[in-house]
Amino acid sequence: MTTLRTPGPTLGVVGGGQLGRMLAEAAAPLGVEVVVLDPTPDCPAAPVARDQIVADFDDETGIRELAARADALTFEIELADQDVLERVAEDSGTPVHPDPATLETIHDKLVQKRALEEAGVPVPPFRAVEDADDIRDAIDDYGAPVMLKARTGGYDGRGNVPVESKADAVEALESVAGPAMVESFVDFEREISVIAVKGDGETAAFPIGENVHEDEILRETIVPAGSDEAVERRALEVAEDVLEVMDGRGVYGIELFETTGGEVLLNEIAPRPHNSGHWTIEGAQSSQFEQHARAVLGWPLAATDLRSPTVSVNLLGDVAESRDAELRNVDRILETPAANLHWYGKRQVRPLRKMGHVTIAGREGETPDELLETARELERSVTFTSE
Amino acid sequence: MTTLRTPGPTLGVVGGGQLGRMLAEAAAPLGVEVVVLDPTPDCPAAPVARDQIVADFDDETGIRELAARADALTFEIELADQDVLERVAEDSGTPVHPDPATLETIHDKLVQKRALEEAGVPVPPFRAVEDADDIRDAIDDYGAPVMLKARTGGYDGRGNVPVESKADAVEALESVAGPAMVESFVDFEREISVIAVKGDGETAAFPIGENVHEDEILRETIVPAGSDEAVERRALEVAEDVLEVMDGRGVYGIELFETTGGEVLLNEIAPRPHNSGHWTIEGAQSSQFEQHARAVLGWPLAATDLRSPTVSVNLLGDVAESRDAELRNVDRILETPAANLHWYGKRQVRPLRKMGHVTIAGREGETPDELLETARELERSVTFTSE
Repeated sequence: MTTLRTPGPTLGVVGGGQLGRMLAEAAAPLGVEVVVLDPTPDCPAAPVARDQIVADFDDETGIRELAARADALTFEIELADQDVLERVAEDSGTPVHPDPATLETIHDKLVQKRALEEAGVPVPPFRAVEDADDIRDAIDDYGAPVMLKARTGGYDGRGNVPVESKADAVEALESVAGPAMVESFVDFEREISVIAVKGDGETAAFPIGENVHEDEILRETIVPAGSDEAVERRALEVAEDVLEVMDGRGVYGIELFETTGGEVLLNEIAPRPHNSGHWTIEGAQSSQFEQHARAVLGWPLAATDLRSPTVSVNLLGDVAESRDAELRNVDRILETPAANLHWYGKRQVRPLRKMGHVTIAGREGETPDELLETARELERSVTFTSE
Repeated sequence: MTTLRTPGPTLGVVGGGQLGRMLAEAAAPLGVEVVVLDPTPDCPAAPVARDQIVADFDDETGIRELAARADALTFEIELADQDVLERVAEDSGTPVHPDPATLETIHDKLVQKRALEEAGVPVPPFRAVEDADDIRDAIDDYGAPVMLKARTGGYDGRGNVPVESKADAVEALESVAGPAMVESFVDFEREISVIAVKGDGETAAFPIGENVHEDEILRETIVPAGSDEAVERRALEVAEDVLEVMDGRGVYGIELFETTGGEVLLNEIAPRPHNSGHWTIEGAQSSQFEQHARAVLGWPLAATDLRSPTVSVNLLGDVAESRDAELRNVDRILETPAANLHWYGKRQVRPLRKMGHVTIAGREGETPDELLETARELERSVTFTSE
């Protein structure tokens, strides 16, 4: 039986960006303290967390210090080093969730896809790429275009290159520069995601959200998604199968394609709270961040019901080059009923950098389409540029 | 127009108890930083706030340091010293909200009642008490019993003494020990409260809540209250009139009696977020804490709509004497769908001390009565005692 004390349990988090910050915000009401490790002094999570250890994500000394101060370790970035985490967990006795082995599986997209396919998770046809011939073979088998992907280090669409014809194979492979894989291009109706949680002997999932990307970066998430019930059910089944493959407790962001034929195919997995789950803070009975804290500590999971139609929109850096972050004209957001502002506390804005988000939790009678329209207006009304 | 930067504006808060803690939790998503001043090292707000200044609530040096670090000052306890705050605000140029003059008006219940009566706010009949004869006169005029109240320093019903007959007047007056006033005893149908906000040229109010007290300490708040529409409307009118009397921006907790005749009478005012408004965190489109941060900074106020029927229940110290705080059997709370735990981070539990609260935000089809029953079960299922 869980007993609350003061101070409460401490979560040690590798990474102190916006995910660490929102995790600390969600942990506080539960009496759970957060210490983050991040190389940037006074990182986004620092003002909200109990403390920050300033060290690189793979700095073993820093992570040992983090483990010594924490009851459980977790990470909010895939850049965490699985070997270091494994070693520290073993030596310190402080558990790490999700399991570092999961990080390893996910880190290499080819390994990830193979593990998932083996477990019966539906994935687009794919193959390893050793040379340009493999890409040409893929075009023969799947039809053009195909999607060439860097096996490691991709993020927000970086490292993904569509290949339109066999003639482009060599150039595409050079642009990826490193181990690669190739996938059939999915003709999708919409992109959706499931925020799923693996707890201590139980699992949970939030209702599916529909994701709108532009330049391969998430712009908006809409809940409920426009999918029909059968697709939602199938997406939740797939998420359940994905959790079976994942080792260790925590929240997983599972990005899926809903094909034009109504099939559900896996796109990518993040072994942590995910941008497409920020809507849960206001839109669901509990947030993905509270669930992650509960799961990592081995506490019971919370309810995941949708409270009302909800839309979240990212506030991205609309600048040509890096500069001090000053978001102008925020009044429209502050004045809009039921618009919830989340500012990530980053000092510098960069082109397309995620600087914050706005969630609108619908009030009676408001439809997702109306919310989306309002969210887009709000996003367009603010700017980081001086003019 | 408001511009967001990093670091964002800083609120300096006199007091770092649970109200300061929840204020810091609500301020973080807005990019607003909180520094608290509190004499207890590592006070409840400390782990969540940017920083704590360890100093007494009326320590002028400490408050000057707080003002120097803050863009605006506020307080979460009535123990704040109005003279010191006024002096520091004037010298530092850092504004204080609400105005310290409001603190002075509220601090003395007789002064408070006179100011409110003058402004047309309905209050129970009352008079100043110089000696026991004034109490006897009140019994003649209002009928027995009457309520004798200490003019200053009362809190959670401390300093309130019902006087059943003229023969008890002397003893009652001695027990109050200090300047006193006497009020007609109100035959109330229920106690209700309005959490009202005074912003920059605008006001807002949350839907009324029904409050259940026991031993003069708040146990539960239920929203919507059982009052009929006319009473709710009248309560919101009264709250609007109260805000007229109050000087300076911020949240005010306005406790009211709904009489058996359907009248609304003012009971007490807190110039700060109030225990009976904790339900707003999950139950309303914005929380009283977010509203307080917005109001003090002069930002636009947020929407106050009720999201779904909501009940909050306090977790009070169920111990006979002070000891290290260990709340046992928390699993029932963690496992209950839509139950939200708030742990205040106090190291010591004392008899009836407020240690945390649980809010249940109703899901579709759940009635306030069902939520209240669940909330009471949860409250009974946890304990600070060892057995």
